[in-house]
Amino acid sequence: MQIIDILKAATSEVFKETRNLIGRPESAVTFGRGAGGDLSSKIDLVAENAVLNTIEKFGFRPTVIGEECGTIKGGDGYLVMDAVDGTTNATRGIPFSCCSLAYATHCRLSSVSDAVIVDLNSGDVYESSVNMGASMNGLRLKIDDNNIRRGVKDQSELVVGVNISGISSDDIERLSRIISKCLHIRHLGANALELCFFARGLIDLYIDLRGKIRVTDLAAGYLIAKEAGGILFNPQGEYLDSDLSLHNRISFIAAKNREFLELLQAK
Amino acid sequence: MQIIDILKAATSEVFKETRNLIGRPESAVTFGRGAGGDLSSKIDLVAENAVLNTIEKFGFRPTVIGEECGTIKGGDGYLVMDAVDGTTNATRGIPFSCCSLAYATHCRLSSVSDAVIVDLNSGDVYESSVNMGASMNGLRLKIDDNNIRRGVKDQSELVVGVNISGISSDDIERLSRIISKCLHIRHLGANALELCFFARGLIDLYIDLRGKIRVTDLAAGYLIAKEAGGILFNPQGEYLDSDLSLHNRISFIAAKNREFLELLQAK
Repeated sequence: MQIIDILKAATSEVFKETRNLIGRPESAVTFGRGAGGDLSSKIDLVAENAVLNTIEKFGFRPTVIGEECGTIKGGDGYLVMDAVDGTTNATRGIPFSCCSLAYATHCRLSSVSDAVIVDLNSGDVYESSVNMGASMNGLRLKIDDNNIRRGVKDQSELVVGVNISGISSDDIERLSRIISKCLHIRHLGANALELCFFARGLIDLYIDLRGKIRVTDLAAGYLIAKEAGGILFNPQGEYLDSDLSLHNRISFIAAKNREFLELLQAK
Repeated sequence: MQIIDILKAATSEVFKETRNLIGRPESAVTFGRGAGGDLSSKIDLVAENAVLNTIEKFGFRPTVIGEECGTIKGGDGYLVMDAVDGTTNATRGIPFSCCSLAYATHCRLSSVSDAVIVDLNSGDVYESSVNMGASMNGLRLKIDDNNIRRGVKDQSELVVGVNISGISSDDIERLSRIISKCLHIRHLGANALELCFFARGLIDLYIDLRGKIRVTDLAAGYLIAKEAGGILFNPQGEYLDSDLSLHNRISFIAAKNREFLELLQAK
């Protein structure tokens, strides 16, 4: 069995196990802080257990890096897991959350070789293996220049995802010029799924400059976005990379190409 | 036939007519500017026609105030229509848009007596008649103090919807203190549906201080939010009201009560 198939089996279990928890008050009951530092909700723990049980069933024993469970030393490779991304949405019932799983051969973001993200509301499955492209429900994803062709001529027409939850006053000031020029800002509340929407071309740019995102939130979306034809930049405009450590906090911008970045910066 | 039933029949037609347009490039083809000043997309026009044809069929001929069609003089009362709220989401395929219809006995927001909003993705139906409460798919909506009870003790735990699309640098600076204190900011991109989410208690506060919202975007959500137990304030902290004129641009905050407003303003 291929690694991508194990990841798909695990996300499928998470989808099943969380069906009756989404939007229910009991899903939000907390059980102390997870390894990532946030409060662990029941839905997070149920979802992580579903992943851990599934990989155990398949005898798949990489090192696991999880938002709640922390780092569990194992054999070759790294499973990077955010079993529920968008926990607040999921517990409230805002229909925008996902399960994000990635496998990396080495302890670097750029070593992610397989990724699966499942939308916990629609059940849509996004997947990618390195150099094999990305797909949604089996259909190839390719960010194209359609939006530019269909008349997106300046930044006002772009749909720009911006994560501003708890952003510092300084950072919001840095973004205020961009925000004031863009008529279609979005903040949906689940980074990994927002990267899938970027990979589908529904969002033209995605910006998170807060320095708060963990590799667990980003690893799977990183590969899916790249394999769909997007680029992830660090705030210095270089290609994004990072160690796969729960202690790392990341800022990034996802764009189709540098032209989009420049469109954003244009006066 | 009651007015609320005519509104429901009309939103149901819009839901049917837009099924095959959502997320399709042809839905975004524009046909000049509507009365509200924005470019009219095909999906907007198809939806407005579905509403106008439905009310015609029922012989219902109030004055119509619509985002695209402008004001069509008629008999008693006012039908306030945003046939597609969240047009950019709908044309892109971001699953968050709605049809918003309200009937007002007089030309004031506070005279809205009936409101129906249909989620154009899920088909969820939100409705309200004045003093009769609000419901979603027939189930009564009541914003309660659950969130406070379940541990929302300070503003960091609130889910706060903030419309920041094209917000001025000055306005974003006014909001930056709030935004930096709230860990769960959302901007989903369809005001009317965001007010329904507020009425369901999924979002604790909804803030739009840009002075850009039209009565067409707001009229139905205004009644549904109020009848579910929420309050809409103007930026001065008074109860929100306005003439039903397409030329008016409105700022508002929706909150369960003044305590929530104060929670937001607390240092």
